[in-house]
Order: sequence, then structure tokens, then C-alpha cells
Amino acid sequence: MRLLTKLRDAIGGPREAAAAEAQRHLDALTKPPGSLGRLEDLAAQLASLRGGPPRVEAPVVFVFAGDHGVVAEGVSAYPQSVTAQMIENFLTGGAAINVLARQAGARVVVADFGVAQTLAPKVGLIDRRIASGTANMATGPAMSRAQAIAAIEAGAALAEDAHASGADLFATGEMGIGNTTAASAITAAVTGVAPERVTGRGTGVDENTWRRKIDVVRRALDVNRPDARDGVAVLAAVGGFEIAGLVGVILAGAARRVPVAVDGFIATSAALIATTLAPAARHALFAAHRSAEPGHTIALAHLGLVPYLELGMRLGEGTGAVLFVHLARAAARIYGEMATFKSAGVDGPSEPAP
Amino acid sequence: MRLLTKLRDAIGGPREAAAAEAQRHLDALTKPPGSLGRLEDLAAQLASLRGGPPRVEAPVVFVFAGDHGVVAEGVSAYPQSVTAQMIENFLTGGAAINVLARQAGARVVVADFGVAQTLAPKVGLIDRRIASGTANMATGPAMSRAQAIAAIEAGAALAEDAHASGADLFATGEMGIGNTTAASAITAAVTGVAPERVTGRGTGVDENTWRRKIDVVRRALDVNRPDARDGVAVLAAVGGFEIAGLVGVILAGAARRVPVAVDGFIATSAALIATTLAPAARHALFAAHRSAEPGHTIALAHLGLVPYLELGMRLGEGTGAVLFVHLARAAARIYGEMATFKSAGVDGPSEPAP
Repeated sequence: MRLLTKLRDAIGGPREAAAAEAQRHLDALTKPPGSLGRLEDLAAQLASLRGGPPRVEAPVVFVFAGDHGVVAEGVSAYPQSVTAQMIENFLTGGAAINVLARQAGARVVVADFGVAQTLAPKVGLIDRRIASGTANMATGPAMSRAQAIAAIEAGAALAEDAHASGADLFATGEMGIGNTTAASAITAAVTGVAPERVTGRGTGVDENTWRRKIDVVRRALDVNRPDARDGVAVLAAVGGFEIAGLVGVILAGAARRVPVAVDGFIATSAALIATTLAPAARHALFAAHRSAEPGHTIALAHLGLVPYLELGMRLGEGTGAVLFVHLARAAARIYGEMATFKSAGVDGPSEPAP
Repeated sequence: MRLLTKLRDAIGGPREAAAAEAQRHLDALTKPPGSLGRLEDLAAQLASLRGGPPRVEAPVVFVFAGDHGVVAEGVSAYPQSVTAQMIENFLTGGAAINVLARQAGARVVVADFGVAQTLAPKVGLIDRRIASGTANMATGPAMSRAQAIAAIEAGAALAEDAHASGADLFATGEMGIGNTTAASAITAAVTGVAPERVTGRGTGVDENTWRRKIDVVRRALDVNRPDARDGVAVLAAVGGFEIAGLVGVILAGAARRVPVAVDGFIATSAALIATTLAPAARHALFAAHRSAEPGHTIALAHLGLVPYLELGMRLGEGTGAVLFVHLARAAARIYGEMATFKSAGVDGPSEPAP
């Protein structure tokens, strides 16, 4: 059986008994019930996913890179060369994601899913190249269905390897000049919201480029007309290889009951695809932050996810997801390390005053 | 010269040259300018406070405890015994603040500023008792001016000691059954906003207790009529010993150019007092999070502070401030560890497309 089919079959819902047990435990800890707010909800969701006490000690961030044929339309502020140059930066540890991953104790997995330039083999660089960048979605499909499935399965296999090595949280990261255009098109296709509402300024394009970017998204959807209910069709039409790889990470996380910290707009577009393929994958997803990209809010609302951080970040690479690791770990440690009212000999609430 | 006067005289404004230099450095790092959002603002503010590259490697959280005579009015869901019991919990490491401080690598300083019960000396417990709890503010001043000043100076001296030992961030925490009532009264007094708008449900009181709490705040202000421009007068009228201690921490932080992570509603009420005594102290303040207490939003708006985390927390102890340490450290490490476009050989933006 294909890996994709196996993963879809393995994805189940939350474990209700574990969720109830988690709530009982949280209410016994030395604090007024609910006083840690969303940190408590986070602990309970982690527990119901795992089916037991939450644990966030070995996070892995997947930074998948790919290039996009649509840059021929002039949709980005940066030249395509930057995708490959940033991979070098990831490998030497100088990028934002390296700094934030070191701080969070997260391992960084860097994989080439299809950068335009051919990269020399390097220590730490995983080769999962599907092609030298996608085709220009403004004039036809970005990739074939077979390529979309191959990229999903390659991403899932890397996540499965990490899980086998003890990873207990997956964070989703990406790099690819032009990939906010792909994320905008995916979001428009899956949610049905108009291109001008889901398309933002990405790395910081000017007004003219922004208008052109909206027009490109509109043309890409007109030319390809993907079926919104078929995630693979949407990916093939307007996706990216690195986005497809993250779809695989999300499906593998959900299948293995490993929490997936969804980063910003591009990673969330992968989540839109993943939940189209397996709706139950949603309960494994944690929206790390709200990006400054307008389409991100629309994608999050479609998924019913409320982000934990709102810092106006729009860098990608998994930077928001890795910052969220601190909150997830806080929730897990609160669950595991706090004293209970009973163990600490602390009095509970008084009788209601007369 | 008195410590309080010395501190007020030592508090200066931000260092503009350092802020400009920080912005230049942040824009040279391998990311689109501004793409790390508020994390970049945070790095720039930390740099302009310190007058050089930011550093968050040795944070200290001050957890000051005090009891409140106003509990005689029946304003809390928990008995007064809990204040002393929670101090035990802090000392044995089982409280939420211990768990979160361990995670953040923050040292916890626990001090008794005036708990109702006399506590036996214990390793790790610092005795700065002003009295066995404040007097009932609903019937007269909570403390004398001399007591308010003594508590401020005791808090400041503990912060000065921590600074001398290398602390590079102060986080403010507190414990005291009844202290949301004091914080509500301080907030109403300083901001001029009506008691019913600044008074919330604290640890979780029922509707009747909440109405009584509002009435108590109103009576405390009527009976004492503190001068809103005189922070010591407001503290003496409706404050708490632990709140006064935190005023001292804030003033010492601002004087030493050490960032102060302000926790929730009670710590922010201390910030209201501190900025009344020394308006320039404001630029040393970082609002860690927005508490679920309605008065907190009003106090933050009065200070012109926008919180970094919005997780609906309302526990106090410094829990929000210590969670924020991860963000402050992320900002400092981004500043110090990221490669520049030049050092990494990454291309900048293309020429604007035609």
C-alpha cells in the first residue's frame, strides 16, 4: 500500500478519555482552575493527542526548500538565487531558524525538495529533489499529480524517521522565493476566498508588484481550475514541492499522534491541503502564530485554529513554530512538574461567603 | 540620600544612538527587513535601554508575598492561609512559577514582605516583613507612608543585589490573597477609571463576591482619597507590601538599565505607581502578557504598553513574565547570532521590476 494511503488510514480523532483525565489533573494543581488560560488548553490538547501526559522534549523543525516557476511573473522582491543561498545559511547555522531552534533545543532538518539550481552535496543537506523548481502556475499546472504525491511521501518519510528517533513535536518550516504566491493560490482555491483578499506583500513587494501578484493568483486559478475537495489536485495546480513535503510532515504527525506546530502562511497552506486529504489531521495541529500576511488569518479561520502568538512575524523558515515550542514545553512541564493542592498541603477555595 | 531618591534621580531615557545602531544591525541580518515583527522591536528596545547589544542570559524573577487586611471584607475565593502555604510551595519548587522559571533558566527570589502568619526561617526565604499584612483599606489606609517607602526600598535593594550578581532581566511576580482588590483600587486611583470597570474576578469569585469587591474598591477610594499624582500616597492608601516591593524592583531596573518584564494585573499596578514616581521608568518596562483581568487592559493602556503574549492567564506569581523571557531571549539571540547578508553571501532585494 502507498505511504499516503497508509497515513490517511492511520489518522484518528482525539482520545476523549485522555482529555478528561488531563482536565482533572490540571484542576488538581496548585493554582486556581483555568488560571493558566490557553496554556492549560494546550496541555489538555497535547494530552488528548498523545493519549497520556504531554511531552515536548525533542522537537524537530523541518525546513524544506523549493523554487517556484511563478517567479517568472515578477512576484517577489528577491531574486530566485536567494533560495539556494539561504540553504547554505541554514547549513552554517546563521539563519533566524537556526538561532531560534538552538534556543528552543529543536533539531533542524534541512531538505532540498526542488531548488532551481543544482546544489552540491553537503553535510546536513537532505536531497529530496522532485525537479528544478515548479513550472509557472500562471500558465499551467505547477507540477504533476505524481510529483505532488512523491513530495508528500518524501516529507512524510522524513517525519517518520524523526519520530523513530524520538522526536515528540514536529515544527514546519520552509524557504522558497515565490512561495507566498503559491500559498495565496492554495488558500484561495481551498477556502473559496477571492485572490485579492488572500494575497499579501510576502517579503515586502511594492504596490505594483502586489497588484501583479494578485493577478497572477487569479490567472493561475483560471488556467488550472483545481477541484477544491482534492488536495493533491490543488497542490499539483498551484502548490510547491516544499509545501507538498510539509503536507507529508503534517499527515505523518497526525498518524503518529505527534503534535505539529504550524508556522505561518505557507505552512498553513500545507495544513489546508493536509486536512482536505485527512480531516481528522486537524486535531494534531497547533497554530503557532498569526503572520502579518492577510491570507494567513483566512486560512486559520478555515481550519478553526486560533494562533498562540501574535507578533506580526512574516519570515517563515519555521521561526514562529519554533518560538511556539517554548509555550508547548511550558504546558507539558506544568502538567508534569507542578505540585497538587494535596501534595503541597495548600488549602482550596473557601466556602462561598454568605 | 535615601535609596528611593537616588533611584529616581538615576532613571534616564532610552539611548537614541543605540536604538538607531540596533535598527541598522537588524536590517543587515539575513531576513527581509522587519520580517520578525515585534521580535525586532523588542531587540531594538532592549538595545536602546542597555545602550548596546541586548542580552538575556541571567533573568531573575522576584516573587514577593504579602497579605491584605481587605480580605476581612470577603473579596477572595481562597482563605488567607494560602499565601503562606504557597510560599512553602515556592520554596519546594512545586508552584507554576518554579516550573516555568526552571524552563526559562530564571532564578527565583522569594521574599516575605508581610504575610499575616509569622513564618519560620527557611532556606531560600528572604525576610523583608513590613508588618503582618496590611490594614483593611475599606476602613482606612492600608499602610503608612513610611511603610510604603520601606517596602519600595527593600524591593529595590533586592533588585540591586541581583544586578550586582549579574542579572540581566528582572521579572516581577507576587503572591497575596486579596491582592487583585488592591491592584483594582490602585488602577482606579491612578487612571481615574471607575471601580466597576477595573475590578475583575481574581482567582475566580462568584457574582455576589464580585459585586462586593467592586463596592470595597469604591469604599477604599472614598475613605482614603489618595492623590493620584503621588505614587507613595496611592500605595499607602490602597496598596500592598508585595506591590510596593515590586515598585522598588521596577525603579531599580530602570535606574540600572535592566529590562523589567511586567507580569499581570498586580505587577502592572506596581508599574502604574513606579511611573508616577519616575515617568522615565516606562522605557525599561516590557508588558509580558495580557491577563484575563479587565483592569489589566486599562492599566496597560494607561502605560502605553502593548503586551507580547495573550493567553488568558490570570495566575500571577510572575508566570507570564517568565514565559516572556523566551521571547526576550529570542530577540537578543537573533540580534547577536544571525548572519548578515554580507557575511552569508545572500543577495538582497532585486531592482524593482519594470
